[in-house]
Amino acid sequence: MATPSDILRVLRTRAGTFVSGQALSAELNVTRTAIWKHVKALRAAGYQIESRPKLGYRYLSAPDALLPTEITEGLTTTYIGRQSIIYFRSCPSTNDAAREVGHRGAPEGALAVAEGQTRGRGRLGRGWVSPAGKGIYLSLLLRPRIRPEEAFQLTLLAAVAVARAVTGEGVAAKIKWPNDVLVEGRKVAGILTEIEAEADRIYQAVVGIGVNVNTTASLFPRSLRATATSLRMNTGHKHSRVQVLQRLLEAFEELYEGLKAGRFEEVLAEWRSLDITRGALVKATLLEGEVQGRATDIDRDGALLIAEEGGEVRRITAGDIEILRPATP
Amino acid sequence: MATPSDILRVLRTRAGTFVSGQALSAELNVTRTAIWKHVKALRAAGYQIESRPKLGYRYLSAPDALLPTEITEGLTTTYIGRQSIIYFRSCPSTNDAAREVGHRGAPEGALAVAEGQTRGRGRLGRGWVSPAGKGIYLSLLLRPRIRPEEAFQLTLLAAVAVARAVTGEGVAAKIKWPNDVLVEGRKVAGILTEIEAEADRIYQAVVGIGVNVNTTASLFPRSLRATATSLRMNTGHKHSRVQVLQRLLEAFEELYEGLKAGRFEEVLAEWRSLDITRGALVKATLLEGEVQGRATDIDRDGALLIAEEGGEVRRITAGDIEILRPATP
Repeated sequence: MATPSDILRVLRTRAGTFVSGQALSAELNVTRTAIWKHVKALRAAGYQIESRPKLGYRYLSAPDALLPTEITEGLTTTYIGRQSIIYFRSCPSTNDAAREVGHRGAPEGALAVAEGQTRGRGRLGRGWVSPAGKGIYLSLLLRPRIRPEEAFQLTLLAAVAVARAVTGEGVAAKIKWPNDVLVEGRKVAGILTEIEAEADRIYQAVVGIGVNVNTTASLFPRSLRATATSLRMNTGHKHSRVQVLQRLLEAFEELYEGLKAGRFEEVLAEWRSLDITRGALVKATLLEGEVQGRATDIDRDGALLIAEEGGEVRRITAGDIEILRPATP
Repeated sequence: MATPSDILRVLRTRAGTFVSGQALSAELNVTRTAIWKHVKALRAAGYQIESRPKLGYRYLSAPDALLPTEITEGLTTTYIGRQSIIYFRSCPSTNDAAREVGHRGAPEGALAVAEGQTRGRGRLGRGWVSPAGKGIYLSLLLRPRIRPEEAFQLTLLAAVAVARAVTGEGVAAKIKWPNDVLVEGRKVAGILTEIEAEADRIYQAVVGIGVNVNTTASLFPRSLRATATSLRMNTGHKHSRVQVLQRLLEAFEELYEGLKAGRFEEVLAEWRSLDITRGALVKATLLEGEVQGRATDIDRDGALLIAEEGGEVRRITAGDIEILRPATP
């Protein structure tokens, strides 16, 4: 049984030219009525397909949507966002969706992706602004053989993957500890890693990533307008969300394979090369108060080291930092 | 509306004597028919209540069961095992039950308790032998304001609470790192702490505890007979599971209150006083191999420090240890 995806594939391989109903029918071994039905389904999903009497069908464009067919078309990963994709026009939180499919036994690399979220979550119980059709809101299900205290590795890895995808769009990305991806000092993406674990091992981890791709300033609440940005706000033009997502998944898989092979140091090295925290004068807001000083490094456990004025070095494992004065180059 | 519990309470306060149906009826403002119905329900649950024409009802004994009414009767905690108790004759795993009520918003201290488990879990994916009516299989739902890497504190705390409850039965308990409670070198209880968390905070934690109370040797699989024990196997007589559970919950709450008030050091000090690991020659089996040497201490992060023969000190955060030669006193 040929599916709409089969029709789509054939039309795309001959993009720009008409393919007759008869040729399609012969190639896919379906009736011309079935082809017409599938084309209507594709159009309903947002694909533009021209049809002309005698000439047949011509592929014009894909919808601006993160449809699984679009995501996997040309994607070079083997398991990240490949075997299992759960797609939502809208859902409360892709992290919840990924966690739940994990409970039901979904394979590592399962992807939950949504056009929009109604209750997108950020770190520390904050929200993540998720206007439909503008950003990429995704969560990856992972089953790494690491301990709970090593989960930060996944977060740093995700930040590097996002930075690579953003850079691929011609936009220079930097990272601010622990996991903000910045473009010209403003936040373009956020990461929330959630785990289920016992003391010795992680049962499953969900890495949630939100990337502001085509979000416009007016879609951010007033309180975020000075600190949030999107690729579109930076370059002035729309970017392909599918393309950004594909580059992100590919970077993620490559880095994650390295982590699993015991080469987290390489991930950390790339993270450090993108980090704007080191050397900066920072203020950390912790549950138990504030710490101010120069950020000297992060240690192997992902903690930020801050040298206070008095000379004492404080190790920050949680909370937020504000950059008071950037590092002098 | 009077409940069976109300009848039970009145009969118990006058234990040993008969209370007339008329007196019960007047005190609880219910019909004598309703009283008879409730007494039948109590008997069906395993309570022994004598009834004699003209004399009325007399309380004789409670069933050997971990019924919520029995657990809360005389329990001095304010929230641990107090406000919310989910009781099972049998369930797959009380940890799963506690986790799920946690997702549905159950309050901190909610207790899941079962007479038996069909898929009791231990650490590292192992099972926990849970024959019905013999042990205590319980899980506590907690929402501590600590970070994932501090979850070991809950495990050490639970081991101390179990040790106190066991000691209260006149049986000397010791602890082997990280969380085995031992009686004369054999395991009498096990603990499995499971968390759901992001990098900065724990959403909820479930501390599962299994205590072998009246388990007899033949109920353990052959492979465990040399290393497992129960209170009954040690003392030769049956112990009240309800009493052990109550002492455990009370000890837990007291210690947990200390932890929440920032006094984990006190828990750790008590843990150390019970620990048989320190000073012993041990072999640690890790995911990545074996480490052998003298256990010198645990550090503030709950890791075991082992001094190898060559003098190198190894820090063990996960895995199991075997005591090759006990510490010399």
